[in-house]
Amino acid sequence: MINSLPLDSASVVLGETDEQSQEDIVEELESEKLGQLLDEMDSDDAVDILDDLEPDDQEEILAEIDKSSKGRADVLRDLLQYPEDTAGGIMAPELLTVYQCQTIGDALSLFKEANENDKIEDIHNIFVVDKHHILCGLLPLKSLIIYSNRKLVKDVMNSDYQYVPVEEDQEVVAHIVRKYDLYSIPVVDGDKKLVGRITADDILDVIDEEAIEDMSHIAGVTQEEFTEESVLRSVRNRVPWLLIGLFGGIVSATIINFFEDSLKLILALAFFVPVVTAMGGNAGVQSSAIIVKRLATGDIHPQYLLSRLSREIQIAFLNGLICSTFLTLIVTLWRGDFLFGFLIGLALFLVILIATVVGTSVPLILKSLDIDPAIAMGPFVTTSNDVVGLMLYLGIASLFIKFFY
Amino acid sequence: MINSLPLDSASVVLGETDEQSQEDIVEELESEKLGQLLDEMDSDDAVDILDDLEPDDQEEILAEIDKSSKGRADVLRDLLQYPEDTAGGIMAPELLTVYQCQTIGDALSLFKEANENDKIEDIHNIFVVDKHHILCGLLPLKSLIIYSNRKLVKDVMNSDYQYVPVEEDQEVVAHIVRKYDLYSIPVVDGDKKLVGRITADDILDVIDEEAIEDMSHIAGVTQEEFTEESVLRSVRNRVPWLLIGLFGGIVSATIINFFEDSLKLILALAFFVPVVTAMGGNAGVQSSAIIVKRLATGDIHPQYLLSRLSREIQIAFLNGLICSTFLTLIVTLWRGDFLFGFLIGLALFLVILIATVVGTSVPLILKSLDIDPAIAMGPFVTTSNDVVGLMLYLGIASLFIKFFY
Repeated sequence: MINSLPLDSASVVLGETDEQSQEDIVEELESEKLGQLLDEMDSDDAVDILDDLEPDDQEEILAEIDKSSKGRADVLRDLLQYPEDTAGGIMAPELLTVYQCQTIGDALSLFKEANENDKIEDIHNIFVVDKHHILCGLLPLKSLIIYSNRKLVKDVMNSDYQYVPVEEDQEVVAHIVRKYDLYSIPVVDGDKKLVGRITADDILDVIDEEAIEDMSHIAGVTQEEFTEESVLRSVRNRVPWLLIGLFGGIVSATIINFFEDSLKLILALAFFVPVVTAMGGNAGVQSSAIIVKRLATGDIHPQYLLSRLSREIQIAFLNGLICSTFLTLIVTLWRGDFLFGFLIGLALFLVILIATVVGTSVPLILKSLDIDPAIAMGPFVTTSNDVVGLMLYLGIASLFIKFFY
Repeated sequence: MINSLPLDSASVVLGETDEQSQEDIVEELESEKLGQLLDEMDSDDAVDILDDLEPDDQEEILAEIDKSSKGRADVLRDLLQYPEDTAGGIMAPELLTVYQCQTIGDALSLFKEANENDKIEDIHNIFVVDKHHILCGLLPLKSLIIYSNRKLVKDVMNSDYQYVPVEEDQEVVAHIVRKYDLYSIPVVDGDKKLVGRITADDILDVIDEEAIEDMSHIAGVTQEEFTEESVLRSVRNRVPWLLIGLFGGIVSATIINFFEDSLKLILALAFFVPVVTAMGGNAGVQSSAIIVKRLATGDIHPQYLLSRLSREIQIAFLNGLICSTFLTLIVTLWRGDFLFGFLIGLALFLVILIATVVGTSVPLILKSLDIDPAIAMGPFVTTSNDVVGLMLYLGIASLFIKFFY
């Protein structure tokens, strides 16, 4: 299909389509044709596609681009150096710069020239640099309209502006863009030399990507799964997580087995196994979700583990008290045995407390290890919570039985 | 604090801060001062704040704004009519229009004038209308730079453009903006009359909002919880969901109680309760997450329920088969009883199948009822899955016991 389109339309299609279709299209294409297409695309989009290829294929395509434009291939090679999820990985190096000592008239000619060549899209700002190419200001496009041609750039440029270092995490970049309602943001290296720019559409992609990533961790599926159509590939994507859950379930089964004697004495202990596992899960996920989201918005930081923990424990204490009182009451009325009701209530209280501590600290610890905190909401932690909750519940129950029954 | 800032800085602070702080600030302010602040702000941001107030307070503030500028208050009153989560609810009515028969020179003067009054921020496009104010094209800002002043707007305007109706869902708008990499999009009424514009920064807010909404449904917390600092308010926000989970747990307990006789015969049935509930949960959430996310990206639609269902059932069939075979094997080896192993495996298989059907259809059904599909990933559905899974598991087990033991 894509082979029949003219080059410029084909490159637009390839750039705009979702990741799965992109991979399918890329697989289908000859490297010559793909090289031509990538040559037509915005370099940040072209790099995204190259990033997904094997190193050999990458080099083959880049060699193809070398033939038509050596400079372009080198730009792409440079961009490939940056990790995919940093400012460098999402920036485009194509941008419009003026020196601070130039005039608005100079900027105007540069803009017109760039526009004719059609090489830079969506220009919101012209970037102002000094003679060492160090960023020193922004010239919004409207300056070209409202100021007279003779004005010096440095006199009218915006010198109170946001910029990001090339190694900055893309999530942090998204934050700054969102916080200051920006449409484009310059990217600089360690010497504050201008190396690229990131536009708001790239940020929308980042936010989408992060949302998919979170969801994949929460649900225990791979990210590819969100665009996957093949049933067999979906099975392969999902089954490892189910097997982790299954393994956890078997561990839970052996724990209950370990407390067989207690269950034989009081079978009703078995009735409350789902209460313990479900409530531990619910309380843990509540804490994790809050922490994960607030970490993502930069609202809280991993170093405040203790203060967050103390807050969540206070909440868990009160919520645990409310839920346990309820459960104690219901179980006492149902079984006509206050001691048993109290035992179940106490277990629930402790499970809620422990699940909250785990749900709060795991995402904070993951984040401080530079691992995605959303993993804390996934099947791995949920399954461990089941295991810990059951040990606690049946352990307490067995102690009670030893002393009171 | 905000009282000591000059009016223009204070309005920026109020506009940019998070929702919780906004509410706190708004509560603190006199209605006169708040009216002045809202008068300074972009009208779409001002309406967001008014939207959160009680109708009485709204009218008081609007009356305050009436005093200084009747027209402005009326604009805000109009905007308040639109539901918060539609194009109308997020658009700003302030925009720059030219008639198609005007010239670039006319557009240039309009732009300069608007810029001096400082009334419209972030102009990416000037909107072209006919004499009935019907939208007929866009004039990107750069046209003012690259075309001669004598050119007619209609000869150089962009007539292949995206626009949205005022009642369009904000999520759909976010989609279009993301798909076409737009920086602003015009909003029209039923007659295609231009009524407002939405800019990329509004879209970033929408996406953030939707992510928070999803997360709140998944975790069973209210949206306010993500910016909440008070422990007592957090308890109040979270405890209702825990009580729902507790209620579900008690239902589960009565189900197990109902099958007491089977448990007395084979106590080992109790060991596998966590396997059944956890695996049902895991499989269900995998399907729900995929459906929720693909619905959000407009990738799939509720009317394809049957085709999605058939795909998910095929996956569940294979995953169920793999997991059940494993479990059957392990339980057979552990308990030395193939029939028992087979029974547990069969139950797991059916639970995975049912949980998948629920996990797939509930979000699709919710969406077709115009309810947020992410609710399907929350505690309500998870708890119901536990109950259904346990009934299935213990029901099958009891049948087996009747015939084989």
